[in-house]
Amino acid sequence: MSPSSLPESWRFDGRLVMVGFGCIGQGVLPLLLRHLKMRPDRLLVLAPEQGLGDYAAMTEAAGVRYLPLALTPENYQQALDGQLSAGDFLLNLSVNVSSVALIGWCQAHGVLYLDTCIEPWLGGYIDPALGLAERTNYALREAALALRHKPSRGPTALLTHGANPGLVSHFVKQALLTLARDQGLPDAQPCGQQEWAGLAERLDVRVIHIAERDTQSGGPRKQLNEFVNTWSVEAFVDEGRQPAELGWGSHERALPADGRRHQAGSQAAIYLQRPGAATRVRSWTPLSGPMHAFLITHAESISIANYLTLGDPARPRYRPTVHYAYHPCDDAVLSLHELAGRNWQLQSRERVLKEEISSGIDELGVLLMGHASGAYWYGSRLSIGRARELCPHNSATSLQVTAAVLAGVLWAIRKPDQGLLEPDELPFEEIIGLCGPYLGEMVGAYSDWTPLQGRGWLFDETLDLDDPWQFCNFRVT
Amino acid sequence: MSPSSLPESWRFDGRLVMVGFGCIGQGVLPLLLRHLKMRPDRLLVLAPEQGLGDYAAMTEAAGVRYLPLALTPENYQQALDGQLSAGDFLLNLSVNVSSVALIGWCQAHGVLYLDTCIEPWLGGYIDPALGLAERTNYALREAALALRHKPSRGPTALLTHGANPGLVSHFVKQALLTLARDQGLPDAQPCGQQEWAGLAERLDVRVIHIAERDTQSGGPRKQLNEFVNTWSVEAFVDEGRQPAELGWGSHERALPADGRRHQAGSQAAIYLQRPGAATRVRSWTPLSGPMHAFLITHAESISIANYLTLGDPARPRYRPTVHYAYHPCDDAVLSLHELAGRNWQLQSRERVLKEEISSGIDELGVLLMGHASGAYWYGSRLSIGRARELCPHNSATSLQVTAAVLAGVLWAIRKPDQGLLEPDELPFEEIIGLCGPYLGEMVGAYSDWTPLQGRGWLFDETLDLDDPWQFCNFRVT
Ligand SMILES: NC(=O)c1ccc[n+]([C@@H]2O[C@H](COP(=O)([O-])OP(=O)(O)OC[C@H]3O[C@@H](n4cnc5c(N)ncnc54)[C@H](O)[C@@H]3O)[C@@H](O)[C@H]2O)c1
Ligand SMILES: NC(=O)c1ccc[n+]([C@@H]2O[C@H](COP(=O)([O-])OP(=O)(O)OC[C@H]3O[C@@H](n4cnc5c(N)ncnc54)[C@H](O)[C@@H]3O)[C@@H](O)[C@H]2O)c1
Repeated sequence: MSPSSLPESWRFDGRLVMVGFGCIGQGVLPLLLRHLKMRPDRLLVLAPEQGLGDYAAMTEAAGVRYLPLALTPENYQQALDGQLSAGDFLLNLSVNVSSVALIGWCQAHGVLYLDTCIEPWLGGYIDPALGLAERTNYALREAALALRHKPSRGPTALLTHGANPGLVSHFVKQALLTLARDQGLPDAQPCGQQEWAGLAERLDVRVIHIAERDTQSGGPRKQLNEFVNTWSVEAFVDEGRQPAELGWGSHERALPADGRRHQAGSQAAIYLQRPGAATRVRSWTPLSGPMHAFLITHAESISIANYLTLGDPARPRYRPTVHYAYHPCDDAVLSLHELAGRNWQLQSRERVLKEEISSGIDELGVLLMGHASGAYWYGSRLSIGRARELCPHNSATSLQVTAAVLAGVLWAIRKPDQGLLEPDELPFEEIIGLCGPYLGEMVGAYSDWTPLQGRGWLFDETLDLDDPWQFCNFRVT
Repeated sequence: MSPSSLPESWRFDGRLVMVGFGCIGQGVLPLLLRHLKMRPDRLLVLAPEQGLGDYAAMTEAAGVRYLPLALTPENYQQALDGQLSAGDFLLNLSVNVSSVALIGWCQAHGVLYLDTCIEPWLGGYIDPALGLAERTNYALREAALALRHKPSRGPTALLTHGANPGLVSHFVKQALLTLARDQGLPDAQPCGQQEWAGLAERLDVRVIHIAERDTQSGGPRKQLNEFVNTWSVEAFVDEGRQPAELGWGSHERALPADGRRHQAGSQAAIYLQRPGAATRVRSWTPLSGPMHAFLITHAESISIANYLTLGDPARPRYRPTVHYAYHPCDDAVLSLHELAGRNWQLQSRERVLKEEISSGIDELGVLLMGHASGAYWYGSRLSIGRARELCPHNSATSLQVTAAVLAGVLWAIRKPDQGLLEPDELPFEEIIGLCGPYLGEMVGAYSDWTPLQGRGWLFDETLDLDDPWQFCNFRVT
C-alpha cells in the first residue's frame, strides 16, 4: 500500500481546532491537509508558543491560522466557545491540558473530539496532594469514561487514538486473528468484546506486551543535564514519573510486593508503587531480540486488558496481563538514567529529535505470549528514511502516531455520533486500512523467546519455572 | 606540574617484559620509553595478537620487540623462563592471565612485578564450577596475598597499581589529610596502617566511594550488538559480571538481604549475590553532581577498607564502607543496558574508544562521607585534549592508569626488595608526585550532598533517615 491508495480527500465542512503543535501536531498537519478536503483557513492551531518563530511560519506556509494561547482551567471554555460549535472538530495534541475537561466541553457542545493521551491539567501527574492511585492512568481513564454516562451516545470522541495508545489495540486484534488462523481455529471473525476476549482465552494468550524498540539517533549526542527523545520530552517524563501500571492477568499467581489494586473502577489493572521509568521488564522485538525495556504506564495497558476480560472483573475467568515494554531511542535511555540520578527532577534542557535524525527504525508492535506457539509479535517497522518519504515533518516515531490520528479523524468525521470510544471499540480493519499506507513494513514474527530464556547461568535468580509467563519472570529486579 | 618536572630518566639495566598490549599497554609504552633510561630492545611486549597489523608496527616504531604469544597455565613458566631472570621486570597489563601464577613465578625468580588488576586465567570470572564467593575479588586478593607468606620479603611485586585500583588509595590518604587540616586536627602525618585508620576513625569517615564519571565520546554511536568502552571491554564485562563487592563498614546496621560474608580471610568486604553491572548506587562527583553509578567490584574496595580497619576484623571497632561507584562513558552505559538484556552474554562486537574520542573528561576520585563536613571529593579531572597533550596513545581514562603504572614501575625499580605490596602500603606522596604531572587538574571539593538529598518527593521510599550514610540509602532498588 502507498499513501496514494488512501482516498484522496474526505470532505469536512466544519472547523477544526488543533490544540498543541509539538512533535505530533506538526506531523499531523501535513497529513490532514493532504487527506481532508477542507479550507485550510478553517483549521486553527492553538498552542502557547508565541507566534513569532517557527510556529507561525509553519502554519502560515500551510495557510492555516495560528492562535498563541495556553489553555487553562480558567480560560478553556471561553477560548473554545469562540472557535467551535456543533459539528466542528477539536483535535487535542497538547500536553498539560485536561482531556477530561475538553471532552466534557465537546460532548456538551456537539463537537467531535480526538486525543492521543488522557492528560491532566499542568502538574497533575506529580501533584504531591494526590495519592499514588490518583496519579495513575487508571484514574484518568475512569474519569474520562465517566463522561459516557449520558442518555444518548453523543458526538464522537475518540480517546487515546495515537500509535500506543491507539493503533496497538487494532494490532492485537489482527494478531489474534493470525494466531487463530495459524492454529487452525475456525475463522469466523469475533464480533464485540465478549467474542474477542473469548478468542484470546481460547488461544491462551496470557501476556501482551506493547513491545517497542526505537533505534533512531542523530545530531549531537545527549549532553549533560539534557533530556533527549524522539517525541515529547515533557509527556514522556510525565508518564515515566507516574506509577508503573499493567493490565493484570487472570493467570498471575501473586500480586507483586509493591503492586496495588484500585478501590473502584474496571479492576483491569494494578499499579506498582514506583515510577515506570524505574521499572524494567524483559521483552522482545524482531530486530532487537531480547531486551530490557521500561514498563511505562499507558492507557492501552488498561483498555486492552479490560476489553479482553471475561467474567467478574474483580476475579476474572480470563484476562491477559498487558503492559508497555518501551526501549526508547538510546539518547532517551541515557536521559532516563540521568533523570533517575536526579531523583526525577527534569533536566534543564530538552531536545526532541526530528529533522536531525540520521538513522534508525521504530519497531512498534504487540507481543502476544503464552499461546501454543509461544510468542508472536505483530506491528509496524518504520525507518526514518521511509517515514520522511511518506510525509514531511515526521520521524518514524511521530508518523506511527500521526497516521493513527489521521485515521481516527477520518473515521470520526464519517461516524460523528458514536459517543466516547476507546480504540478497542473501533473497527480495527477499517482503521488499519486508513493508516496502513503510513506504517512502513507490517511485520508478523513468531519467536521461541520466553523471559526464562538464558536466565540463571551466572547468578541464581528467583524464577517461576512452572509458568514462564508470570509477571515475576519478566520483571527486572 | 608538567611532565618535564619528572626526573627525565630513571636508569634500568634489566629487561622488561610487558604482558598484554591493549588499551593500557599501548598507553604505558610511550611513558616507559620517555622516563626509563633503558635500551628499547631490552623491552619485550608479549601479547597473543599475531604480529602483522598495528601491534608489530607500533612496537617496531618504538624499537621494542614484540612476541606474539598467549600465556596459558601450560606455557607461562617456559615462556617467562626464556625472557626474564633475577632483577628483571614483569609488567602484567593483560587480561585472562592469572596474576597469582605470574606473581608466584616472579617471587621465585627474583623478578620485579606490577599489575593493575588481579586476574584469573581465561574463564575464571564466569566459571560455573565456582561458587559466587570464589568468583569475587576478595578471593583473588586472598590468593595473591597468600604468596606473601615467605620467609623474607622477596622481590617487589606491586599489586593492582593502576588508577583504581591503585592511585585512589593514595587519594584517600591525601583526602584524609586535607579533612584533618580543615577540621583543625593536629597535623602530624599518620604513619602506618593503624594510624591512618585511626585518623579516618577520628574524622568519622563512614563511607568512601571511588566516584568516577567518564564523559568521553566520539566516533560512531554504539551500534546494536556492540559493547563500547573507553578501556578494555573484556575486563570491564568480566568485573561487571562478578558479584558486586564492597568493603563493609562498622557503622552499617544491617547486612543487605542479598549480602554475604566470607568464611575466611580479611573479613573486610562482603559481596552481593548479583552482578555489579546490575547494581546501581547513588553517588556524586563535582562535575556530574548526583548520579546513579554502577557498583562494580574492584580490589580497592577491599584493600582500602582492610587498611582502614581498627580492631577485630570480624567485628571491627572501625571500618568505612568502601566501594566503586562508576559512571562509565555514555556508550558504555548503553552497552551495559544491552548486556543486561542479553542476560550477560557479551555482545558480538567490541570497540574501545581511544583515538576516535572527540570530547569528554574522566573525573576519577574518592568521595569521603560522613565526617563533620559531610562529603569531600578528591581526585583527577582530566580531559581528552589534555591527556593527548600529555602523552600520545592515551585517552583521559588510560592516562590516569598508565601514569600510575609508570609511577609504580619507577618506585619498584628503586625499591626492588619490598615483597608483595598493595597500593595502600606504598608512600602515597611519593607516588602522587611521580604521576601527578599526568593527572590533569587535581580537584578537591566539599559537598552537602547525601544519598537522602531529594529523595521521596514523588514516591515513598524505604530510607534510613537516622543515618544518611547507611548503604541501604545509597543503593538503587
Ligand atoms: N498515543 C501515542 O502514540 C502518542 C505518541 C506520542 C505522543 N502522544 C501524546 O501526544 C501529546 C503531544 O505529544 P507531542 O510529542 O507532540 O508533545 P510536545 O511536547 O512536542 O508538544 C506538546 C504541545 O502542547 C502544547 N501545550 C502545552 N501546554 C499547553 C496549553 N496549556 N494549552 C495548549 N497547548 C499546550 C505545547 O505548546 C506543544 O505545542 C502528548 O499528550 C503525548 O502524550 C501520544
Ligand atoms: N587499575 C586500573 O585502573 C585499571 C584500569 C584499566 C584497566 N585495568 C586492567 O588492566 C588490564 C588491561 O586492560 P586493557 O584495558 O589494556 O585491556 P585490553 O583488553 O585492551 O588489552 C588486554 C591485553 O591482554 C592481552 N591478552 C589476552 N589474553 C592474553 C594471554 N593469554 N596472554 C597474554 N596476553 C593476553 C590482549 O591481547 C591485550 O593485549 C586488565 O586487567 C584491566 O582490568 C586496570
